[in-house]
Amino acid sequence: MSTSTIRGVIGYTITPFAPDGSLDLAALGQSIDKLIASGVHAIAPLGSTGEGAYLCDQEWEAVVRFSQDRIAGRVPTVVSVSDLTTARTVQRAQLAESCGATAVMVLPVSYWKLTDAEIVDHYLAVGTAINIPIMLYNNPGTSGTDLSVDLILRILREVKNVTMVKESTGDIQRMHRLYTATEGKVAFYNGCNPLTLEALVAGATGWCTAAPNLIAQLNLALWDAVQAGQMAQARALFYRQYELLEYITRRGLPTTIKAGLKLQGLDVGAPRLPLQALDASGSAYLKALLDALTD
Amino acid sequence: MSTSTIRGVIGYTITPFAPDGSLDLAALGQSIDKLIASGVHAIAPLGSTGEGAYLCDQEWEAVVRFSQDRIAGRVPTVVSVSDLTTARTVQRAQLAESCGATAVMVLPVSYWKLTDAEIVDHYLAVGTAINIPIMLYNNPGTSGTDLSVDLILRILREVKNVTMVKESTGDIQRMHRLYTATEGKVAFYNGCNPLTLEALVAGATGWCTAAPNLIAQLNLALWDAVQAGQMAQARALFYRQYELLEYITRRGLPTTIKAGLKLQGLDVGAPRLPLQALDASGSAYLKALLDALTD
Amino acid sequence: MSTSTIRGVIGYTITPFAPDGSLDLAALGQSIDKLIASGVHAIAPLGSTGEGAYLCDQEWEAVVRFSQDRIAGRVPTVVSVSDLTTARTVQRAQLAESCGATAVMVLPVSYWKLTDAEIVDHYLAVGTAINIPIMLYNNPGTSGTDLSVDLILRILREVKNVTMVKESTGDIQRMHRLYTATEGKVAFYNGCNPLTLEALVAGATGWCTAAPNLIAQLNLALWDAVQAGQMAQARALFYRQYELLEYITRRGLPTTIKAGLKLQGLDVGAPRLPLQALDASGSAYLKALLDALTD
Amino acid sequence: MSTSTIRGVIGYTITPFAPDGSLDLAALGQSIDKLIASGVHAIAPLGSTGEGAYLCDQEWEAVVRFSQDRIAGRVPTVVSVSDLTTARTVQRAQLAESCGATAVMVLPVSYWKLTDAEIVDHYLAVGTAINIPIMLYNNPGTSGTDLSVDLILRILREVKNVTMVKESTGDIQRMHRLYTATEGKVAFYNGCNPLTLEALVAGATGWCTAAPNLIAQLNLALWDAVQAGQMAQARALFYRQYELLEYITRRGLPTTIKAGLKLQGLDVGAPRLPLQALDASGSAYLKALLDALTD
Repeated sequence: MSTSTIRGVIGYTITPFAPDGSLDLAALGQSIDKLIASGVHAIAPLGSTGEGAYLCDQEWEAVVRFSQDRIAGRVPTVVSVSDLTTARTVQRAQLAESCGATAVMVLPVSYWKLTDAEIVDHYLAVGTAINIPIMLYNNPGTSGTDLSVDLILRILREVKNVTMVKESTGDIQRMHRLYTATEGKVAFYNGCNPLTLEALVAGATGWCTAAPNLIAQLNLALWDAVQAGQMAQARALFYRQYELLEYITRRGLPTTIKAGLKLQGLDVGAPRLPLQALDASGSAYLKALLDALTD
Repeated sequence: MSTSTIRGVIGYTITPFAPDGSLDLAALGQSIDKLIASGVHAIAPLGSTGEGAYLCDQEWEAVVRFSQDRIAGRVPTVVSVSDLTTARTVQRAQLAESCGATAVMVLPVSYWKLTDAEIVDHYLAVGTAINIPIMLYNNPGTSGTDLSVDLILRILREVKNVTMVKESTGDIQRMHRLYTATEGKVAFYNGCNPLTLEALVAGATGWCTAAPNLIAQLNLALWDAVQAGQMAQARALFYRQYELLEYITRRGLPTTIKAGLKLQGLDVGAPRLPLQALDASGSAYLKALLDALTD
Repeated sequence: MSTSTIRGVIGYTITPFAPDGSLDLAALGQSIDKLIASGVHAIAPLGSTGEGAYLCDQEWEAVVRFSQDRIAGRVPTVVSVSDLTTARTVQRAQLAESCGATAVMVLPVSYWKLTDAEIVDHYLAVGTAINIPIMLYNNPGTSGTDLSVDLILRILREVKNVTMVKESTGDIQRMHRLYTATEGKVAFYNGCNPLTLEALVAGATGWCTAAPNLIAQLNLALWDAVQAGQMAQARALFYRQYELLEYITRRGLPTTIKAGLKLQGLDVGAPRLPLQALDASGSAYLKALLDALTD
Repeated sequence: MSTSTIRGVIGYTITPFAPDGSLDLAALGQSIDKLIASGVHAIAPLGSTGEGAYLCDQEWEAVVRFSQDRIAGRVPTVVSVSDLTTARTVQRAQLAESCGATAVMVLPVSYWKLTDAEIVDHYLAVGTAINIPIMLYNNPGTSGTDLSVDLILRILREVKNVTMVKESTGDIQRMHRLYTATEGKVAFYNGCNPLTLEALVAGATGWCTAAPNLIAQLNLALWDAVQAGQMAQARALFYRQYELLEYITRRGLPTTIKAGLKLQGLDVGAPRLPLQALDASGSAYLKALLDALTD
């Protein structure tokens, strides 16, 4: 239904830190305004790129409240509420809803390997606790849990407000199988930047990405070209930004996006330790990539 | 250069066997004629699908001679000449050239793991022994050797008649890296059927596939749609044939193509043992897939 | 040096929960007393088995304080202090030291992939903040980060109070390389139950395991047999307990140990959601394994 | 039964080539005599190390006949008869039997992935064609096919002259599962040199290895120490030869064994192309390892 999915380029926010390690909400506000001004179709606060996993509870809440206030309905939002325990995931989802989030994103992060039943029940618990849609997020590279296509289909059937699937395995076949199994009806989203051309061509409803913090015009142009069915244009746009997409994904999104914003004049601080700021050679490489794209 | 690459859908032949296990060249001739009549742009005799690895030397030679004679220049050919030893690969490549092959395909099949130097020298030995182009073939799933993008680029530089690259890892990123590293100049081919939509959109020069033995019209229509830049049409055509492409690839090409040809009225026998004919449930599933596509 | 390593069977504690989900410290005390009475050589509070990753900060502190008080120096302790951020890992390590821990264990849990430099600096930060030894813990299956043997050797050189290495990859070659690279001098510990026979024969200084909660006599007998050089006896003892060791490891330690303790008459509650109590068929299988070992 | 298995260290032969690439049977004879003189318990002609996969049929037959004649019953033999087709595997097995082989070894080499039924029938075909025992060989690294423990157990049940299992996955858990599933009755053999200590301690009936061509005394001493239950001695002997075992396995057995024999004064030529002779830095490293072991 029209209200249960979000279309287009969904930009991730970073979480700026002051030199003493505390939250820098002023810089967060600037980065949110920059994203919206660039034209992204939606914003995803506090996801992987937002270092949500590295914040304590109070920080996490502060960022959600601030982000929703600042966005103020200008674009839809998908708030990442993943936590190791079901109880805290539910609390975060309820908080996000109360703050006005359009939807929440849930990645089954785990320490111990979860059974299928445990994963389904985790989504059920969140789903019954809120009245907004859930974007299921599969990313074994960060969560340690790989949701098979069959399990995703089962969750779609059993948890009625799971209406969106974000796939970040980097395996385009997962999207093909989701598409064919649902006759093209499931809304799936690309979460692996270097896979964007094929994901969009394969029918993805959106692209969840941190790249618009740095190169929103190119990201949106690629989206538009695919929507307009301009294949040669889409291919050219994709390859133009490919090396940047590949680098930020491989080298780590908080690290590279923060370095890139600094290169563009917005100081959002370093990532939180053990993550370190991008080193000199990395920054030089990133600068060369960015310069080549803004000629 | 224009004569060094082949464009379009390159159809694989199967190798028919009589009930006593000997070659059935009459049926081979029929299957070749069927492929050409269907409109494929080129034919690849004796590749993986043709059970080339399971033939003794005399049989291998007989199939090459017969195939080239029967094709008789109606379409270009790429003959697979891979063998475990360099010496036999060279002999086969020379034989293929003498029989009129347009190009040869070389997969670095190995028993012992090869070093990069050993792989480069293997291609060099074949390259210097013949005067026709070589299609480098990367398929770790069957060869046990995975050629990195860097190694492929090195071979392209060092062996001048390696002018085509067939990628069958199923990883679309390999194609993106080949494309960006050569500024779109390398001719790369898709060898993984379920990856065809994205490979073609990513700029592949051709599609090497056994599927045209069974559903050539759909394969060619997909190719044409991408060439014409018709994205919605390409997507619809791809998903229409996706389950068949996925099944024949997963279940084994000689096994399923032979079963499919029998369902279509051309008896080409069973694959050679230890490979067995597709069992009853597999055949029923394949029949259902084919029936759905010919409604 | 004699004070910097711990020898023998190091038993993990579970963290009991009451039906309302709160900590059940009384049951924790019983399980600690049971472990010590069984003869384990040391105790590791709050590790993976102790669901440390699922506790909030206040709970985590309460468990550490209670455990150290209850153990009261009867055996040495290794407290797991791993956290996603360096700052909280340091705080936890300092708390553990202040409570009397003999050593701390640090697993580089991560959300984003860490560079080698980030990992080394993480250990350095902990190492300089405390005055007790660190057991480095490598377990890519739960942490998402695989420390190569070379990186482990580098950390051993650069962080002087890292004096012990717990290897849980399940790859015995890692232990062989640690042994040969240090001429047998590094103290390495087995963290993969089904690898225990070979790890001990290969020279492991200890075995970190949750199994003593259920079958301490067999675990200790295996340890003693290897120390006494009784190979046939060690082999027989290992195979006797192998299926239990394999099952609890594969099915999840908190889940199976809690189910096993209940079967033995000590109710420590269920694991914290999303982890669920072992289901009926699992419990029946576990009961059969335990019954066979106590005949 | 006593006649159906072989115990101890089973040495692989290499296949010497003259400078013109032809077989050098005189050198083969010398290498066989050297192995037997060194005290190996059995010999395995023409396995992986013997470059059997790189020989044409006539060469293969010549080597088998020559080897059996030269060994002349001084020790038992296990002839590797693996081929891509079932028909040729059967022919080779029958030839080996007719030449006096004690047993044959069968690796399910494949080009196309085989189903379980195809693998079982392949072993059945060989088993019913001969009257000597079969050693089943699992080595996915070279064959591309991984036989699960369950499938191996099924073949042991269904093909009565499969009486030995050679495991070369490098995963000690496979051996533990074979042992427990058969209550220690199956005769399993270690085919992964760096796993030898644990495989023998775990109950392996033998060790199939190319190492005795170079360091037979150390190999046999390790075997003897384990048989005598001397754990400390076994550990010391294993670590003493570990780096050599690891290097020859990782760098390739025909390549390193041929280089090592040359260093020891027996020129057996280079491996067959595309395999190349060990390069200068590799030979220097190998020489250093050998020198350290013969001090």
